[in-house]
Parts: sequence; C-alpha cells; structure tokens
Amino acid sequence: MTRAIIAGVGMTRFGKHLDETEVSLGRKAALAALQDSGLDPRTVEAAYCGSVYGGMMMGQRILRDLGLSGIPTINTENACSSSATALHEAVVAIESGIYDSAIVIGVEKLTKFGGGAIPLDEEDWNVQQGVIMPAVYAMRARRYMDTRGLKAETLGLISVKNRYHGSLNPHAQFQKEVSLEEVLNSRMVADPLTLFQCCPNGDGGAAVVVVSDRYLSRLLKPPVYVAASIVSSGKFEPGISDILDAEISRRSARLAFKQAGISARDLNLVELHDAFTIGELLYYEALGIAEPGDGPRLIHDGETRLGGKIPVNVSGGLLSKGHPLGATGTAQVVEVTTQLRGEAGQRQVDGAKVGMCHCTGGGISGMDHGACSIHVLTR
Amino acid sequence: MTRAIIAGVGMTRFGKHLDETEVSLGRKAALAALQDSGLDPRTVEAAYCGSVYGGMMMGQRILRDLGLSGIPTINTENACSSSATALHEAVVAIESGIYDSAIVIGVEKLTKFGGGAIPLDEEDWNVQQGVIMPAVYAMRARRYMDTRGLKAETLGLISVKNRYHGSLNPHAQFQKEVSLEEVLNSRMVADPLTLFQCCPNGDGGAAVVVVSDRYLSRLLKPPVYVAASIVSSGKFEPGISDILDAEISRRSARLAFKQAGISARDLNLVELHDAFTIGELLYYEALGIAEPGDGPRLIHDGETRLGGKIPVNVSGGLLSKGHPLGATGTAQVVEVTTQLRGEAGQRQVDGAKVGMCHCTGGGISGMDHGACSIHVLTR
Repeated sequence: MTRAIIAGVGMTRFGKHLDETEVSLGRKAALAALQDSGLDPRTVEAAYCGSVYGGMMMGQRILRDLGLSGIPTINTENACSSSATALHEAVVAIESGIYDSAIVIGVEKLTKFGGGAIPLDEEDWNVQQGVIMPAVYAMRARRYMDTRGLKAETLGLISVKNRYHGSLNPHAQFQKEVSLEEVLNSRMVADPLTLFQCCPNGDGGAAVVVVSDRYLSRLLKPPVYVAASIVSSGKFEPGISDILDAEISRRSARLAFKQAGISARDLNLVELHDAFTIGELLYYEALGIAEPGDGPRLIHDGETRLGGKIPVNVSGGLLSKGHPLGATGTAQVVEVTTQLRGEAGQRQVDGAKVGMCHCTGGGISGMDHGACSIHVLTR
Repeated sequence: MTRAIIAGVGMTRFGKHLDETEVSLGRKAALAALQDSGLDPRTVEAAYCGSVYGGMMMGQRILRDLGLSGIPTINTENACSSSATALHEAVVAIESGIYDSAIVIGVEKLTKFGGGAIPLDEEDWNVQQGVIMPAVYAMRARRYMDTRGLKAETLGLISVKNRYHGSLNPHAQFQKEVSLEEVLNSRMVADPLTLFQCCPNGDGGAAVVVVSDRYLSRLLKPPVYVAASIVSSGKFEPGISDILDAEISRRSARLAFKQAGISARDLNLVELHDAFTIGELLYYEALGIAEPGDGPRLIHDGETRLGGKIPVNVSGGLLSKGHPLGATGTAQVVEVTTQLRGEAGQRQVDGAKVGMCHCTGGGISGMDHGACSIHVLTR
C-alpha cells in the first residue's frame, strides 16, 4: 500500500472577508496549495471539498476557475470536521491506489449570516432550551471547576497562550496578544466563558494537495506523511454523569495512535479543537497529552506553550487563528505540515517530527450526532 | 481486492411526505435495507449519507435512533448524484479493505420548501436570466427537434412509458398510467416540455447495505456485485454549439464500461436520469444505448419499454417514481438490485443479469459544475 503524502498546503488568512465568497476563498487556498506543491495542476486527479454552509457543488464551483474542472469531485459535510473528513476520503482513495494525487479544500463564509452565531435550528429541542455550544462548553467548565478545583484564571490562560501563538501567525484572525485581565474582563458569554474564551466568527479557506509515493521525487518541499487518518461519530461524552470525558475524541485518538504506531508521548505538537478554552483542557485529557485532572498543570507549567514540552495550537488555534467551520480541519493540516517542514518562522516548534490534528463538532450534550477526526502527520 | 457487494436494499415510497422529516425518511429506508440484508445491524462498520438540503450531520441524525451511532459517518453532497457519490465512497472503502460492511443512505425532503421548485440562488446569473433546469432541458429539446427532426409526440411517449412502469412500482410517486394526449395537453412548463414531462417535487429515502466478500455467506438474498463505480464532474455538454452531447455522461459511461469490462450491448436494463423527457433521449445516446439521432427510434419501437430489448427506467424513473434529489442515486441501485435478484414482480425484466444506474446534476448550460455518477451492477 502506498503512503499518502501531504505535498502542498495553502490557506487564506482567517477573518471577516466581507468582499469574498466561499468560491474565491477556496480558490485562493487551492491555488496556494498547488503552487506550494510544485506540481502541475493538471496532475491533480480528484478533488474533495469540505464545507458546512457552502451550498450545492462547493468543490466544483471552486475548481472551475482553476482549470481543474472535470476531475471527480466529492463534497463532504461533517460539521467542524467537514474538511478533515474530505482529507480522510482523499487519503483512503490515494492509499487504495485509485488516484495518485488529489486536492482537498475546506471553506466557509460565516459572515454571510451576519454577526454573532452560526444558524440555529429553531425546531431542535436543544436549541429551544438554550443548549447551544457556548452553554454546553460552559457547563463542562463549571463541572470541571466544581469537581477538580479548576480556576477561571486557568481557563483564561489558555486564551492568553493561543492569542500569543496567533500573534506569530500571519494567517490568524487575531494577531494581537491579550492579557489575562483582558480575557477575564471581556464580556461574559456563558459563565465562566468570557468572549475572549470563545472562538470568533469568520471566513476562510484552506487546502492541501495529497499524493502517493509516485510523485515523491517531483515535490518542491520535503514530504509530510499521513501516518493516521480517522473519522469517527458518536456522542461527545458517555453520559450526563460524566460530561468531562470527551469520549468521541478519546476513542478517535486511540484509533489514530494505533494506526500510526505511536503514543501521545511521541507527539511534538498538536492542533486541537479549542472552540472554547475549556475544550482545549478537556482535549488534552481525551487525546492523552494529560492524565484526567492534570490538564490545568500543563497550562500553568507552560508545557503546551511554544517552547514547552508539547506545544498545542501554535497556529493560534480556533481561539486566535479563527474557526470558519469547514476550513478548520484542512487549516490544522496546513499548520502541522508547515511545522514539520521547519517553515513556521517565529512560531516554529524546534525539531518537530510528529504532529496531530484534532477537530470535533456536533454532539450537543447527550446527543449521538457528533463527529471527530484525527490526522497524525510525520516527516 | 475484494469485490463490493450490494447486500440489502430498501426505500420509502417517493412522494409528498408532509408528516415525515429527512431523518424519519432516512431511518425507514435504512431499516428496510438492513432487514433485507439479513445482517445484524451491529456488523455495519461505517455509514455514508447523501443529501443536498438535509443540513448538518444528516447521516448521524438518521443513525442515532437505529443503534448505529458511533460508526464513522461521511456525509456527501453532489447535487442529484449526492447519494450515488456516497455509494461510490463506500465502494472505495470496502474495496480497499478498510471496512467489510457499510450502509449508504440517500434522503431529501423537497416539500419543506413549499410547492414548485427547488430553491434557486438569486445571485446566480443563470438564474437571473431564467436559465434554470426546465429551460435548459427545453432548449436541448428544441435543438433536437430543429436538427434531428424530433417530434413533440416522441418526447411525450417517454412520459407515457415511464408512467406505465411507475404504475407497476409500489414505491413510485405516480402509480397511474397517463395517455399521450394527457402528457401533451398538460400545462406547458418550458416549451416543448409540458408538466407531465418534468419530474415531480417530492420527498423520500433510499438505502443500500454494501459488504465485502467476507459477508457473502451470511446474506439473506443473492449477492449483487458492483462492477463499476464512477463519479465525475464537469460540463453537461462540450459547448453551446453542441448542447445535445451530454459530455459528462458520455465520459462517465465510457469509464464505467471500461471498469466493468463490458459494453452497452451487455446491459439488460438501465435506470437513467430522466428529470425531463428530453433527458432520457439524450442519455440513451450518451450512454451508448443508441447512436446519436437514433434515440427516437428506440422509443417508437418500444425497445426501452418493459419487455423491449433494453428496458430503461422500469422503476418509473424520475418522471414517475419521483426525484427527491439526494435519494435518487440510491433508489436507482435499489431498483436494479431488485431486478437482478428477480424480485421485481410485475415489472421484472426477464433474465436481467447486468444493469446500469446513471444520475447527473448541476451543470447548467456551459457551466463547469456538473456531477455525474454511474454504477454498473451484475448478479
């Protein structure tokens, strides 16, 4: 079986792109990834495009101006894991030998809905009760505070860290550092989560070129290998009695480590789904970076900060780089690939050889319809 | 490489299901397919769900009440080929050995938009000019009439045939025969296409269980093999000067015949994308069932009618069975599988051994964003 290789990566800056469309954002990202790969665009044999709200035939609409029309195009949706799912489908096809090259695009334009939140389904009884994402994560934070002595300040430090990382990333939506005071004193969204502890609303595109061994000698940049590619579904947590156990993420990580033949100790950096500060903490534990209850220590000791033992979200993460849903999965791969190549400049993780990308979505408390995807990349 | 086998099929009746949701329609279809397969639902390892307008995490929402939550779930969109694309992704995964069993679900509820048409994008310049599907197909019909002497009556006979087939199918939206006079005298939609020559607006779900050789001995019904699975994208026709050449369908068929190692002459039945009567005629020629210009003869000679040389749309097709977009691709597979098993009752094609499913969408005249999928099934 051939290995799937990340041959090229590209993305737009994330942010409020009022003058762009999903198509223009996706096209820019795809063009950047193709140029980065050094491959003739005509060698691309298939396209996979992930988006939540992009509408019909998102991939085809992006590709038509790139001269790539006519190749098989698969559009995927899996909430926040939409383009990570697209990458998974591409990896399966490459590894099975159907294609030797594919482009994966993630895109979203959330500002088209106006300010504030993503569209809510008023017929959903969770929504009717106010059980929406900030509230769900806030309940998890409250439970962590009550049962494990977490302090609001510790959560705030996660934002401080990721905003610092974002200040080093020219693609981040927020590129300015914030102080702990600013984080804690920002407007309360869902107690204890203040505004600066919630990922912003924004737009963006990210793209990745994936190839088989066959193209190895033609690449412009050092190859980055896909050592594991997992897509899972299910509940966020096993039950209401244990809302701190991010079950779907834990299960997916176990599968990913097994597929890659490594353990959490082998990771040099992680991009994980910090849609809210408490999320980052819970995912440390779900992914095996920290033992249950030990997450806060990692923050206080700076272990997950750039320069620490296991830097997390050096891109700025969802909190600082931004979170245009469909683009997030591929953007994580853009970051980890850039790091493994040693091209991350000021935010470079020294000697990074193994990185993980984790995103998860859906799965409002107790509901079965979550998605999670994990990719392990190695150089 | 293992072969992908259709192990079970199921669908709801297509029609206006005002009391159902996408979730309930998908669940009924999935349950029927699982029961038809004879497999324990717990053996299903992954799910693929195709829908255009179903919304976020369509597959997960359907599976949660079936006890199938937690398996990897991939949601696909590709206009009218959405669930055929889902099947393609499942076939790729099964053939590559990742999974030994998967469920594929197609679902749509068009009545949620009210009566009439599917939602139109008012910012699309095609839409602004009135270049919408009925108009595009009407122009193709006019061109065929002008250049190849096609008569309006011939087009009408396609509806008469497919309504007759639909009258034999308990899952069809329309189960009543119509006369040529009724077809030609029904309200004009886009000259020369009258109302009865346009597929109806409706809702429905269809599902297919796909397995590897490993489950062959456990199946309740005779296996049906996937001999070819193709997804393509591109333009409907090569250019405005030849709008009668359904290029994307022709190209996809060529790939499918090559993959299956057969030619059009080997087909015993075809389910093709008769969204409008002229479509059926053009696809005869694109798929190689008829030489260019010879399609009308097939109609007049009854060759594509049940009992003819190569019955087309014995399910009733989109014109009579209905066309809930995301459900259409899997519903075609339900029909061909039923036929190859010899279970089609009154509408059985005697001795059917090889069948083709073809659906195509998007690709308004001259635009690059079309999709087409073809599956060849054999017993």
